[in-house]
Formats: sequence, C-alpha cells, structure tokens
Amino acid sequence: MAEEVSNKQVIFKNYVSGFPKESDMEIRTTTVKLELPPGSTAVLVKNLYLSCDPYMRTRMKLSDGGYLGVNSAFKPGSPVEGTGVARILESGHPDFKKGDLVWGITGWEEYSVITTETLFKIEHTDVPLSYYTGILGMPGATAYFGFNELASPRKGESVFVSAASGAVGQLVGQFAKLLGCRVVGSAGTKEKVDLLKNKFGFDDAFNYKEEHDLNATLKRYFPEGIDIYFENVGGKMLDAVLLNMNLHGRIMVCGMISQYNNTGGSEGIHNLMNLISKRIRMEGFLVSDYYHLYPKFLETVISYIREGKIVYVEDIAEGLESAPNALVKIFTGENVGKQLVVVSRE
Amino acid sequence: MAEEVSNKQVIFKNYVSGFPKESDMEIRTTTVKLELPPGSTAVLVKNLYLSCDPYMRTRMKLSDGGYLGVNSAFKPGSPVEGTGVARILESGHPDFKKGDLVWGITGWEEYSVITTETLFKIEHTDVPLSYYTGILGMPGATAYFGFNELASPRKGESVFVSAASGAVGQLVGQFAKLLGCRVVGSAGTKEKVDLLKNKFGFDDAFNYKEEHDLNATLKRYFPEGIDIYFENVGGKMLDAVLLNMNLHGRIMVCGMISQYNNTGGSEGIHNLMNLISKRIRMEGFLVSDYYHLYPKFLETVISYIREGKIVYVEDIAEGLESAPNALVKIFTGENVGKQLVVVSRE
Repeated sequence: MAEEVSNKQVIFKNYVSGFPKESDMEIRTTTVKLELPPGSTAVLVKNLYLSCDPYMRTRMKLSDGGYLGVNSAFKPGSPVEGTGVARILESGHPDFKKGDLVWGITGWEEYSVITTETLFKIEHTDVPLSYYTGILGMPGATAYFGFNELASPRKGESVFVSAASGAVGQLVGQFAKLLGCRVVGSAGTKEKVDLLKNKFGFDDAFNYKEEHDLNATLKRYFPEGIDIYFENVGGKMLDAVLLNMNLHGRIMVCGMISQYNNTGGSEGIHNLMNLISKRIRMEGFLVSDYYHLYPKFLETVISYIREGKIVYVEDIAEGLESAPNALVKIFTGENVGKQLVVVSRE
Repeated sequence: MAEEVSNKQVIFKNYVSGFPKESDMEIRTTTVKLELPPGSTAVLVKNLYLSCDPYMRTRMKLSDGGYLGVNSAFKPGSPVEGTGVARILESGHPDFKKGDLVWGITGWEEYSVITTETLFKIEHTDVPLSYYTGILGMPGATAYFGFNELASPRKGESVFVSAASGAVGQLVGQFAKLLGCRVVGSAGTKEKVDLLKNKFGFDDAFNYKEEHDLNATLKRYFPEGIDIYFENVGGKMLDAVLLNMNLHGRIMVCGMISQYNNTGGSEGIHNLMNLISKRIRMEGFLVSDYYHLYPKFLETVISYIREGKIVYVEDIAEGLESAPNALVKIFTGENVGKQLVVVSRE
C-alpha cells in the first residue's frame, strides 16, 4: 500500500481582472497517495523550488492571444502551474527514474503527478538547485535563445533591455556584454538600477519611473540609436524605442509585462511606421521552440557560471504559503531579481 | 548655345495636414536651357511617365519617421518628386548616353536634371514603357522582393494582401498564386473586388468598407488562419490580422496607407502580444535595399508578362496638368490599379 501524505497546494480561485491579488489564490491541504496510477507514463514528484514568471499572468484569464494561445488559462479550483525543480519519487517513463532531479512544468503543491513532455533531467548539482528555475531553466534559455540566436547580435552593437533586472533581463544584458555589445537597461527602482550598473555590468541603466519623456531618455542613453531591443514590457516604452531604433534594427519580443494587468486591453502602439523606414525586424518567440537546443545552452551557461563570467540574483520566498505573495509582487516590481519559492530544501 | 524651352512643372506648395488636395500643388511654367552645367555627372532628361505612389504622402510633411526618415519632405516651392520613365537628352555620366530610356527618381515637370544614383536603363521596350513606373519599376520590385524574398513563402500557404488592387498588391497576389499559395485580398470598392477575383486570379476578395468586424471577416476568409500578411494599410486591419495569424506567420510591412492622412498621429495597434504567442516575424522593408537584385527581378517578371502569366492594370492620367488630381485620388481610393501620369508619349 502506498503511503498517504498531506499535500499543501496553492489553488487558483478564479479568473483575474487587473492586478492579481494574493486572495486570487488560496492555500489548501489535501491528502494524496504517493503512487502513480497503474500504466501511467507520467512521473510523481516532490516539488522543491517553484518559479514565479510574468507569463503566468496571461494564464490567469481566459486567453485572448497571450503566451500560450487560447484555452491555456489555469483551471479555477486547481493548483497554479509553472516551472519548478523537483525530485522524482516514482517514474512511469523509461527516461526518468526514482531519485532523479528534474525541472519542468509542475504544480504549485508539495507533490505533483506531471507529464514528461517538457521535463529536463538535472545532471549538474555543483550550482544552486534553484538556478534551474532561472539562469539554467526557462528564463535563462529565454534570454539566451532570444538574444544570442534570434537577435543576430554583433560585437559593438547597442542593446537596450527593459525590465532589465528581472529573471530574463539581467541575463540578456550579461550575454550581450560577453559578446562585446554596449548595453543599457531600464528598471523601476534605484536599487535595481544600481544592480544593473554595479553587479550585472551594464554600461548604463535608468529608472523609467523617473523619466517623463521616454523618447528623450532613450536619445540621451543612445545618442547613436538602438540596434537591438529586448522587449519585456510593451506599451509606451515600445513606442519610444521605435523612434530610436537604428536601420536594420531588431526587436525581440519576449514579453509585455506592462500590459498584462490592463483591464481595457493593451495600450495602442503608434510608431510602427518606423518598421519600414528603418527596416526593422520585430519578432516574437517562445523558448519552447528552442528546447531541442537546451543541452548546448546548458553547457555554455554553466561554464560561464563556473568561470565567474556571469552572476545571477534571486529573490527567494520561503514556503508554499508565501507563493501567492511572491507571484503577485512581480507585477508591482517589488521583487529584486529572479523571484522563486522554496517548497522544500529536502 | 543650348535651346531654351518652356518647362511645365507641378510645384509642391507647402506641407500638408490631413488628406492632400489638388490645391496643395500648382502648375507653373518656367523656361530652362536644355543643357547640363559644365562638369556635371548628372543627366538631363525629358520626362515621359510619372508614378503616383502612396509613400509620396509621407514626403508631404516634415517627417516623423515615414519611409525615408527625417528631412525627406518635398521642398515647398519646388517640383514634386517621384519615380518616372524618361528619355536622356544629355548625359554627364559614362553609364548613360543621349537617347537612353531610363527609370528612376525624377521631378514632376517636363524636363529634369537628375542624379544617376538610382537610375535604371530600360533595355526591353516590347512591353508598355509605362510598366516601368509599375510592374517593372519600383512597385513591381517592392512586391517581388517583399513577398518572394522577405516573406519566405511556401506552396500551399495562406496569404492575405490589403490594398490588393493597387500597384503593389495586385502583383503580390499574382506572385503568390504563381508559387501555389492561397490568396485573399481586400479593397475598397466592388469594382476592385471583382478585379481581384476575375482579373488577377485571387482565390477570394472582400470590400473592407462593407465589413464591420474585420476580425470576424478574416475568420470567415481564413478559417485556418493567415500565414503571410502583406501589409499595405495599417490601423484596424493590422490589429484584426494579428488575431488571425498562424504560428510562425510573417507580416511584411510595406506601407500603412490608412494612416498617412491622420492629423492626430497613427492609430494605436493593440494586439502585438500575438507576435509572441504565434512567434510572428513582422518586418519592414524598403525596395531600395534590394535594387542590386533588380536584374534578376526584371528577367523573371518580364518573362511572366511575355508568357501571359501575369497581368497589370493601370489607371492612366493624361498630361502634367492632371498630375495633382491623380496623386490626390490614390488616397481616397478612386484610382483603379496602378496610378500614373503621362507627360509625353514622345
């Protein structure tokens, strides 16, 4: 007989309008049997670290074309889902065995039964395990493939990163510096701007909340224009960037966090004629299209970490009970660096 | 002594706000000596056909990022400029000689002195000379390079073309059909819709002015989504298209004619998050970046014409005096097909 244990969960209560609140989720404890259904090809895992990511906001409403298309919304009454790091307790799949550490899509709960479609085995444990929610996980791969692969960056180009101290932005900036680009980032507090300049090695950074004319701001930081914009925020920033792009510039559209909590739809973007006059390529991407290249990414970035060429700042919340607050605060910008939740340190 | 002749001109009077009017231009007659200044490397030409193109509207105001960047506006008090077909009367450049037929940027007047930077010699005269303002000139190359080169079309894909009966659109649709794509076009009158279906061989077409919900319209014409959108209009059509694009779709941004006459700036575009969820590449282009490939284009398209694989509809205004009206009416959609002006049939 399988052991029956209590399973604490973060339940998504109902679709959200405007900024998400902690009360849009609730903590519930059920019991589960620690076994897979007979014949299952899934895995039963104990969750260790959970990732809080901006795209999750688009799953808190019935989708109108968010990240994952229609019908990707969380199911009211079920646990929130996201990427996380977990230990396999039982495996129905030949590629995974009991005791393996993995990262991939899991539930916001202590124990989950998950499919193995997008599940990666963790082989290297000389780095913090939590890194597989960030620099070595989905956000890291997003930054790497979106910038290094999709943006076709060249040494000496000027790169602008918005939401630059976040899980993705801090890495885009560092990858760009490693390639010999000039990098400027924007963030929403003085503390974050200091991090960008002093910890992540950005050439410059500014607090967008203190700027009243973003077009003028960008002209000040990019007197010779922007070659690559790594877009994390959308809205007015995008419109100002369009006015400051160089010929043959590239805009990699990763996210538009400034728009996710709007109740009246997204702000209109007015300066798209610049796409023509400047022959700009503006391209959206999802990291999942690049997961077949994950081993190459991992090898590269884990070397950077070991050699001290790259740093990563995490904002760690302790315990599943703190998860709703941790998720909510990434939309108000209260987190500093990659937001994650520790469920268990084992 | 050089002959002195009268030179009728279409003068651009002053910067335009809102829809351009005939009275924004005036006919003036001066006299010119039919000779080049000593040492000039330019050519003196007699203009034969002048092209009326939507991008010209962006040169009628102080530019905020239109086609040709800042300071590309027409000079008040000087002749309108555009592409045209001309006969060389005197050449200061070794690549051109007296008597050559050419097409390129020229003035809206009977005689012009023009630079040779973007001047093409016309070798094939078994097709109408006026074609070098359209199918074999700038609009034709725009359609060919924007679609065949930049959009990476594949047989069987679904293509949507707006302003589809215009100088560029009618060709994009026909190039797409020649590649085995399914093509639907939009236009603003029943006559144009009939042309698209019956003359240009589009699979289907609709009058956007009779549609009140463009999203629903596009869902009706593209139940399986749009793979390639050739963007000529901008505004609400673009927003509706974004909702109907397929995964890995491509939006080639050629023009946004619906926006050129706005007095309050461009309409906002709200659905850009679809770039991410559908991994769309949205790319602006200018035909001038492809002119080094013009000989390849010419060879291909002139064969299509000779073999009857492609047709071209022109809207021909007679005489320089009719040029202001001809230009103005392309913005109200009164022209049918490629609008041009005959200055002289020689």
